[in-house]
Amino acid sequence: MIKELTVDLGARSYPIYIGEGILENIDSYFEKHGISKRSALLIVTDEHVAKKHLEPVIRKLERAGFKTASHIVASGEKSKSLAVLEEVITSCLKAGLDRNSSVIALGGGVVGDLAGFAAASYMRGIRFIQIPTTILAHDSSVGGKVAVNHPLAKNIIGAFHQPEMVLYDTATLRTLPDRDVRAGLSEMIKHGLIWDAEFTSWCEDNAEKLIGLDPEALQYGLYKGCSVKAAVVSQDERENDLRAILNLGHTIGHALEAVAGYNELLHGEAISIGMVGAAKLSVRLGNPEHIYTTTKRIFKKFGLPVAVPAHMDTDEIMKAMMYDKKFKEGKMVFIVPTDIGKVEINKNVSAEWVRDIVDQLKQED
Amino acid sequence: MIKELTVDLGARSYPIYIGEGILENIDSYFEKHGISKRSALLIVTDEHVAKKHLEPVIRKLERAGFKTASHIVASGEKSKSLAVLEEVITSCLKAGLDRNSSVIALGGGVVGDLAGFAAASYMRGIRFIQIPTTILAHDSSVGGKVAVNHPLAKNIIGAFHQPEMVLYDTATLRTLPDRDVRAGLSEMIKHGLIWDAEFTSWCEDNAEKLIGLDPEALQYGLYKGCSVKAAVVSQDERENDLRAILNLGHTIGHALEAVAGYNELLHGEAISIGMVGAAKLSVRLGNPEHIYTTTKRIFKKFGLPVAVPAHMDTDEIMKAMMYDKKFKEGKMVFIVPTDIGKVEINKNVSAEWVRDIVDQLKQED
Repeated sequence: MIKELTVDLGARSYPIYIGEGILENIDSYFEKHGISKRSALLIVTDEHVAKKHLEPVIRKLERAGFKTASHIVASGEKSKSLAVLEEVITSCLKAGLDRNSSVIALGGGVVGDLAGFAAASYMRGIRFIQIPTTILAHDSSVGGKVAVNHPLAKNIIGAFHQPEMVLYDTATLRTLPDRDVRAGLSEMIKHGLIWDAEFTSWCEDNAEKLIGLDPEALQYGLYKGCSVKAAVVSQDERENDLRAILNLGHTIGHALEAVAGYNELLHGEAISIGMVGAAKLSVRLGNPEHIYTTTKRIFKKFGLPVAVPAHMDTDEIMKAMMYDKKFKEGKMVFIVPTDIGKVEINKNVSAEWVRDIVDQLKQED
Repeated sequence: MIKELTVDLGARSYPIYIGEGILENIDSYFEKHGISKRSALLIVTDEHVAKKHLEPVIRKLERAGFKTASHIVASGEKSKSLAVLEEVITSCLKAGLDRNSSVIALGGGVVGDLAGFAAASYMRGIRFIQIPTTILAHDSSVGGKVAVNHPLAKNIIGAFHQPEMVLYDTATLRTLPDRDVRAGLSEMIKHGLIWDAEFTSWCEDNAEKLIGLDPEALQYGLYKGCSVKAAVVSQDERENDLRAILNLGHTIGHALEAVAGYNELLHGEAISIGMVGAAKLSVRLGNPEHIYTTTKRIFKKFGLPVAVPAHMDTDEIMKAMMYDKKFKEGKMVFIVPTDIGKVEINKNVSAEWVRDIVDQLKQED
């Protein structure tokens, strides 16, 4: 059974379909949602995903009468650059994409962010369809935040550009490496931590099933994770306030990724450490100790890192944070848990305290 | 007397101020419109404009307590690239721009388009202020279309991002080279041709005053030109239909610019030829001959070119047009005058006819 939910954004509302075998019927989803057969489509994907899923997707779509072209980028964060964006736009032009065309992101968060920004900026905005093929992407594929990186800061060049739909075929997750599975589940746990204590417990109780890619557990977890994301985005599309809570663990996490050169730590691993840091900060701000112990226990249960790698320089981490965008008029904005399933946006966190936390995070075990 | 008009776009409405000496009081305009003194501003400008206007603008703003940084790009269309965009974003980061910051475009259309797209994409969108310093920019600074070029197509990577305000100080126009003045007036005449026969006549009658930069004529002409632009944009912000009429002369014009390598022809010159071409097409479609004769007479009176340079290859021009974005599902959309002051959006123009017109345009004199 395919589960369906809606991201409610008025005229920009769109559906998320989650379940097994969706890509086998991709043409019917496209037809149902009025994707043009006269205007060319561009499928953007990466080398790894292309090997597994590109051919069958193209075949299905072409047989149904859609005109497709594809653009394959190197796997990994390095493809989220303006240089690669220009190459994607070259493909849009060469394939003759027009204003009724769609760009399709077939892949994980990198592909989604890159293809999404291409769709947002090509001809000042054309349609965009998300086909996430990682667990992590259950987060990034919903909500319309698209971007590429700048050498000095992640996701700093981008747009808000909502997809027409999200097609989440859980069959594509089966071949993910174990490390990617665990890292992807980090965002799922985050959705529990910010919004839903019961779902957080469910995640902890079902850790083994989730890591083992049990289809039913996975579909339910992704459905719940996407539901939290959809609820938050519906209330605050352009991150004027509430949406910031989705950044739990990301202030420290992004800085760790930047210092690690986008290589040593996967995004989900970096924010796992970041969420433990946020929980430590929470306790320091006077909230109950169990927030920290529970948070840490859950991430450890998923085999995710909870400590800042000892060789990383705290100064460098703090400098990377200064370039990140979670600052407003010089003050540091930090998402702080106030309980399991509940967070606040604290706009007055001193950089000194954060520095202390980062230092302490090197001692976690 | 400063003239003021409003671009009416609901929550995104903004004022345009036109008149002599506005930059001498730039700080008061910024204060009036609530530009933050705590968040850094980035002034983007080009080498030529920087020499004349950057220092006094910075001095005024700094004295009033604004925090400014500046980024100077090379003059000319080549700065409208993703590579230069990345450099502008570097300056945003180094100057510490945050979500309450503004990017200020001090210059002509190139600077406005580039700085505007930087503002649209930095942190997924921050505030943006237009300070046009050319006549041509009375068109580009109003309406929120911002973009950079791709090697294969102009303005193909961009966004709709409305400015907070447009500050049009006619004093900055006094040092413009004569060729730029005439080319800039081409867009003013276009606003008459698409919307207002009376204003078209006024332009023709006041050609010498306008070319001679008579302050009163210039202020009136810019005010009327901006008014037409504002009226069109208010009715169709994202170019779903009506806004396309602003592209009169641009389908051929952009192709000529592309083939000329963005060098031989100024934008205003290219669209002058393009508007004569559109008038010829109009007559071929059965409209009265006077549309062509009047259009051509006016542009000649302004000393603007009306013929496609003979050495340009028609095939290349047509190919450049194929990459341009005025196509929809394979059919060619063309803005065709149906009278002076009136145009229609014709979606069924055959490429063959356009090719004939381009060929014939080589014989104009």
